[in-house]
Amino acid sequence: MSLGGLEAGGTKWVCAIGDGPDDLRETITFPTTTPGETIARAAEFFMDNGGVDALGIGSFGPIDVRRSSPTWGRITTTPKPGWRDTELGSALETALGVPVAFDTDVNAAALGEQRWGAAAGLETFCYITVGTGIGGGGMANGRLLHGLLHPEFGHMRIPHDRARDPFDGVCPFHGDCFEGLASGEAIRERSGRPAEALEDPAAWELEAEYLALGLVNVVCTLSPQRIILGGGVPKRQGLFPLIRERLQELLAGYLDAPELTASIDGYLVAPALGDRSGVLGAIELARGARA
Amino acid sequence: MSLGGLEAGGTKWVCAIGDGPDDLRETITFPTTTPGETIARAAEFFMDNGGVDALGIGSFGPIDVRRSSPTWGRITTTPKPGWRDTELGSALETALGVPVAFDTDVNAAALGEQRWGAAAGLETFCYITVGTGIGGGGMANGRLLHGLLHPEFGHMRIPHDRARDPFDGVCPFHGDCFEGLASGEAIRERSGRPAEALEDPAAWELEAEYLALGLVNVVCTLSPQRIILGGGVPKRQGLFPLIRERLQELLAGYLDAPELTASIDGYLVAPALGDRSGVLGAIELARGARA
Repeated sequence: MSLGGLEAGGTKWVCAIGDGPDDLRETITFPTTTPGETIARAAEFFMDNGGVDALGIGSFGPIDVRRSSPTWGRITTTPKPGWRDTELGSALETALGVPVAFDTDVNAAALGEQRWGAAAGLETFCYITVGTGIGGGGMANGRLLHGLLHPEFGHMRIPHDRARDPFDGVCPFHGDCFEGLASGEAIRERSGRPAEALEDPAAWELEAEYLALGLVNVVCTLSPQRIILGGGVPKRQGLFPLIRERLQELLAGYLDAPELTASIDGYLVAPALGDRSGVLGAIELARGARA
Repeated sequence: MSLGGLEAGGTKWVCAIGDGPDDLRETITFPTTTPGETIARAAEFFMDNGGVDALGIGSFGPIDVRRSSPTWGRITTTPKPGWRDTELGSALETALGVPVAFDTDVNAAALGEQRWGAAAGLETFCYITVGTGIGGGGMANGRLLHGLLHPEFGHMRIPHDRARDPFDGVCPFHGDCFEGLASGEAIRERSGRPAEALEDPAAWELEAEYLALGLVNVVCTLSPQRIILGGGVPKRQGLFPLIRERLQELLAGYLDAPELTASIDGYLVAPALGDRSGVLGAIELARGARA
């Protein structure tokens, strides 16, 4: 059986064929250009490599994941130019003629981490990515989070102290929501340089503050057993300790659990699968579509 | 089979024996005084009325709901004077000699609403109470929300515009968290009068703003199929329409679902069981403990 995984991100797409971390037979990465060109390139990759028996897609969003919906498989209200109302799931289902499982990129990554990584054995946990944007997904009671649509952690509202940070935020819908203030794009707009090139310690303290505020809200709503923080921004050397410290200070001992106090290093963690959580999770989604 | 339900609130306790909304054979309500006196009074009620075969407790929190924990059944870090580290579940288990199910008051209310009320047929939804404090619970994927401990919606952080509202908030742990700004106690402290006696339209607009901000965060994290808003504060005539309007404005069309737009009146609703969601849910918890 040949399983295909597609991590469809706003910046780049990763396609893979295989069965898990130790069996990735073919992979390819290419930039996200127009919908037509990018989807065709993905379809070509899977066809040129012998086809697959099922495909799992973890996509940037918002998307329609409701299997019974007439617009299932669609990328819906994304602000990404040219991508609003793009048929992704059904386009690849038609092109490849195989069952397709369609979920968010962050739910796919969460699934990958539960199958092979940092969330093994957990029933309720989150995967959050902080890159160009901010997204969040995960599991509650052993199943991926869906509900009405799917979570959109990046669009929570968090406190914004304009005396400390007069920046208006970058979200085209909400301005200074979580993503508007703390995403890689927010860092770039505020400081005039990409996160990788930002050295100002005060700017990183501000970033840790916003990320900790977002995490407080996730802890208070979903009560995850662990939080996996992926994406490019948290790779910054020294950022995890700053976030953990601020998260503890903001919680102020209200929630009485060793995971949030003495053992916080094991509570807020990086993805064990590194940058491959998403595409591996997409392969795991494909396994479910096949079953 | 005789099922007992106890809604253990910070202000009052409600005990009932019965099988559902149409069969509540005995009920009693009394004020929450000291732990010893209040727990004894509950035990007495159940014993004096022929005993029960199982008891369900929905308690104010934070509490320890992990059945395998040595401190299961305990009210833990509550700021309520005299109640910190109170053994509730095990005390009633010993006094009555029957199986006890122990959960948060809001999870109990959510369960009651799913069994007999506004959440019938839903798998992922929330029950939020806004009274003296703010609490939240619900289900994800058909089971009550637990995770690391249990949700504590009231302690999310939300934007606080100090130019509009210079009030510092009432939460002893966090100051101006969601509960610190929007609970009945916050209204009383800020205005000098209880919510029932507050007539100033600007104050109610502010309350709707805070409640809508909290709801945005719940929508963005849990993606509930419906939100049930109970407790004393939302009973204010005209408050629901204000909250719904602000919630829509804050979401700004980003989440493409009729439930959040044309059908929002059916999305954000009052409890169908009124003030009995909690005690009826506790009875439903008892049924689970018996099984």
